[in-house]
Amino acid sequence: EHEIRIFALNSNKPLAEEIAKVIGIPVSESSVKHFSDGEISMNIEESVRGDDIYIIQSTSQPVNENLMELLIMIDALKRASARTINVVIPYYGYARQDRKARSREPITAKLVANLLEVAGATRVVTMDLHAAQIQGFFDIPVDQLMGVPLLASYFEKKNIDPNELVIVSPDHGGVTRARKLAEQLKAPIAIIDKRRPKPNVAEVMNIVGQVDGKIAIIIDDIIDTAGTITLAANALIENGAKQVYACCTHPVLSGPAMERIENSAIEELVVLNTIDLTKRECASKIKQISVARLLAEAIIRVHEQKSISPLFS
Amino acid sequence: EHEIRIFALNSNKPLAEEIAKVIGIPVSESSVKHFSDGEISMNIEESVRGDDIYIIQSTSQPVNENLMELLIMIDALKRASARTINVVIPYYGYARQDRKARSREPITAKLVANLLEVAGATRVVTMDLHAAQIQGFFDIPVDQLMGVPLLASYFEKKNIDPNELVIVSPDHGGVTRARKLAEQLKAPIAIIDKRRPKPNVAEVMNIVGQVDGKIAIIIDDIIDTAGTITLAANALIENGAKQVYACCTHPVLSGPAMERIENSAIEELVVLNTIDLTKRECASKIKQISVARLLAEAIIRVHEQKSISPLFS
Ligand SMILES: Nc1ncnc2c1ncn2[C@@H]1O[C@H](COP(=O)(O)O)[C@@H](O)[C@H]1O
Ligand SMILES: Nc1ncnc2c1ncn2[C@@H]1O[C@H](COP(=O)(O)O)[C@@H](O)[C@H]1O
Repeated sequence: EHEIRIFALNSNKPLAEEIAKVIGIPVSESSVKHFSDGEISMNIEESVRGDDIYIIQSTSQPVNENLMELLIMIDALKRASARTINVVIPYYGYARQDRKARSREPITAKLVANLLEVAGATRVVTMDLHAAQIQGFFDIPVDQLMGVPLLASYFEKKNIDPNELVIVSPDHGGVTRARKLAEQLKAPIAIIDKRRPKPNVAEVMNIVGQVDGKIAIIIDDIIDTAGTITLAANALIENGAKQVYACCTHPVLSGPAMERIENSAIEELVVLNTIDLTKRECASKIKQISVARLLAEAIIRVHEQKSISPLFS
Repeated sequence: EHEIRIFALNSNKPLAEEIAKVIGIPVSESSVKHFSDGEISMNIEESVRGDDIYIIQSTSQPVNENLMELLIMIDALKRASARTINVVIPYYGYARQDRKARSREPITAKLVANLLEVAGATRVVTMDLHAAQIQGFFDIPVDQLMGVPLLASYFEKKNIDPNELVIVSPDHGGVTRARKLAEQLKAPIAIIDKRRPKPNVAEVMNIVGQVDGKIAIIIDDIIDTAGTITLAANALIENGAKQVYACCTHPVLSGPAMERIENSAIEELVVLNTIDLTKRECASKIKQISVARLLAEAIIRVHEQKSISPLFS
């Protein structure tokens, strides 16, 4: 039997603590300090020789700092003879830079995959990648967990009559995700169809599906500046929806997001804790649900080399 | 003939402009922006297909941002079919993390080498690596330029009688560098020999060599917090030196450095511009000498595939 060790970096220590608690082991001792010139100084204070390591680190803001912390820790653990180095990246940053949308763009999501591999990661555990293709950027195993079941369970507890409910995708790219939530809640779906009638004319939000008189739940993978989601909420209300909820896996919530949500028609925004919000001033409408149990179970199953089909996509 | 293009990232644009001017071409159009969540958005605004690219970027403070900018630009250029991607890193950050001084330390200087290679760099041009071994961390060619000749030329112009002069290494690791400067200035050397008589007793600065009545020039590769160099200057004065100059290749100058230099016995600190100081409040004693011509000549010779033996170590 090889020992299992959890290491926590700076992006999301509360989640790492929770995961370790579920598994029933302490978080291993390590610290990230900075030299006077800002270079990272990594201190791993326990032997890891022959052990199976799980590092918990989201590459959320500050993304470049968090990514370098992760790469340097992987390097240190590899040189300290860890048996496996599993990186648990609940939120995988740079995921939206996953293709060349224009000439001479980088594909930073692929670059990051290469960086993690060359540093020495042996496996990645992550949640709701912005594009499923990102799994293919890696040559090491990638386990992708889904947030929809957790979000669905939360809404199930509200006991809303499925006939009153509609699940809304804010764009065409999110329809599969919306359908999954709709299936679990036994509700129909609607899609927001943004169209620009002419160049340089404001977008029109057209709704495909029935929302009049209904309670709508908008679902997205990432909510960043919250522009899309708050405009979608307005469009739903204008089209007769009587109440609007929103939910997502990754609460990036940058720039004007908090203010927009606070001032929007959204009743409640339900998010997962793939990104730590505990140190932020949160809009009173935000409800955060923990992924600790989900990730802890995934870690245990990876460690016991069991298949984890119901949890993974 | 393949076209040569210079790209400048954010760490040291004044140096990149100077290098391009010496070569006689404009700096190619590109910009680094940030999305709302802090992720880097890289824009390369000219075709680079089939071209030989030289990116000028020091991995100085903020080191992790500067390194990620560099990696992302390399990725974008590689995907845009550049013929070669030569990274000119006048100051190579993380160079002091070049070995495991204690158990479970990372070797970040090697990690960075791996990151640059996996991103797609085809050659590195750099100056005065903290340890010569770092060249061996790469599997691509590394040209290492030396700062000593530039520093020596500056001091030669002061026309100090060589019999009055002594070149001082602040520690045993820097003796080779001090000897090179001493050779060019035809002066003898001295070495500061730090010793801790007992554990937990303050270090004693012992000077090996003759400094009484002399003008001393202390030379180091990096001056960071300036602790070593200012203590060395005091020790020299106490041992009878009548004037103390200091010089280095890489002016990291973090934390208390500026204040320490200002308040020290040092007459003048002569540094190279591998790290940009133009945006900082500089101590009035600092004199900066440009490496632009040296790097421009190196770029031209690399491009023309000539040997560059007198310039390179
Ligand atoms: N951090 C980011 N914030 C906002 N937009 C981004 C970010 N990263 C990439 N993008 C852009 O988002 C687009 C991809 O988003 P999507 O169409 O939702 O996959 C591309 O045009 C990217 O340039
Ligand atoms: N950025 C930094 N600032 C100060 N010390 C560092 C830095 N990076 C590494 N070190 C330490 O400096 C020592 C190596 O310096 P040296 O003996 O001069 O090669 C090692 O013990 C490192 O832990």
